[in-house]
Amino acid sequence: MERLEDPPDVVIRRLPLYARSLRYLLDEGINSVSSQELGERINVTAAQIRKDLSYFGEFGKQGIGYDVEKLFNHIERILGLTQSWPVVLVGVGHLGQAIARYDGFHSQGLQIVGLFDTDPLKIGQKVADVEICAYAHMPQVIHDTNARLAIVAVPASDAQPVADILIDAGIRAILCYAPIILQTPDDVWVRYIDPVAVLHSMTYYLAREHM
Amino acid sequence: MERLEDPPDVVIRRLPLYARSLRYLLDEGINSVSSQELGERINVTAAQIRKDLSYFGEFGKQGIGYDVEKLFNHIERILGLTQSWPVVLVGVGHLGQAIARYDGFHSQGLQIVGLFDTDPLKIGQKVADVEICAYAHMPQVIHDTNARLAIVAVPASDAQPVADILIDAGIRAILCYAPIILQTPDDVWVRYIDPVAVLHSMTYYLAREHM
Repeated sequence: MERLEDPPDVVIRRLPLYARSLRYLLDEGINSVSSQELGERINVTAAQIRKDLSYFGEFGKQGIGYDVEKLFNHIERILGLTQSWPVVLVGVGHLGQAIARYDGFHSQGLQIVGLFDTDPLKIGQKVADVEICAYAHMPQVIHDTNARLAIVAVPASDAQPVADILIDAGIRAILCYAPIILQTPDDVWVRYIDPVAVLHSMTYYLAREHM
Repeated sequence: MERLEDPPDVVIRRLPLYARSLRYLLDEGINSVSSQELGERINVTAAQIRKDLSYFGEFGKQGIGYDVEKLFNHIERILGLTQSWPVVLVGVGHLGQAIARYDGFHSQGLQIVGLFDTDPLKIGQKVADVEICAYAHMPQVIHDTNARLAIVAVPASDAQPVADILIDAGIRAILCYAPIILQTPDDVWVRYIDPVAVLHSMTYYLAREHM
């Protein structure tokens, strides 16, 4: 097979949106979709979709479009979602609890297998059937569950030391809700969820309208 | 004054991170910073920072670096953050409650002035001193508070009709936590917070390591 060029990260970030949109189409009983129709659903041009998918092989036929189920299954395989991924979550405050209770993770191949907090009143309690443990148990839980993914929902001041513990214990990818930039080794993936920064990037445009 | 080129959106999205990092520097009592040092804090190259800031004028001096407070204040002005922005939040489930209670909004110029839910048991209750109202009150509250920003934390199936109501009532920018792509007029800004998609974009890399 011809070796294809490595796709840029921006393409990888769009793939989950394609997969989700295709799943909605499947749920609606739609078996075939053009790049045009798929693009309209996710605000991406048809040309962009064709280009993005071209990194992974040949999909769809001119004038016929994509087989929804085939393309969905293929993208799930590309994203590694034919297996379930154990995830640990550190910080079980209001946000952490909301994350732990969100059934959107479990239904999409992400299983929260460990919860950690420093609050002695929380330790031993359960959220969504998972017991909250002290930080001291992180290495053991990560080892036992083989978790490579972690969600960090602690205050900014605690996020770096928490990330250090996680990485030492074998975590390779972190989704960080704390408003800081983590310093991590090159072989660890980190992404951020930062609603304040996102809102501020929109106030820019709104403020200009009145200038 | 020379008219500068409009900065691309990706630059606007980075500005809030620069502002936050500069604020941390101020808190640490650091008055001057090189683009190199600032870059290390946010994992951006020094050249990128200089290029990003060049859209907004001349900052810093060769060999001296940036005056932290001046640059911070300038970016705050660029982002429209010298004023406070009223924000309404729709959907007061676990996630919505965590958002409403998060003090990081208020301390950064974003004030939640309205909460809305459909659950009769929630309507009339308060979260973080703001009363939860029925959807029917959205237009009035948005009018009275002059809110232009909204956060949508409802299930995916409700997000589009909620967005439609918000936009009809005058909302111009939406931060959407629901896992769908909203269809909105061109003059409405929409950004997404999508932890599942973000985690899936990392499972891609982890899955490949074992291939």
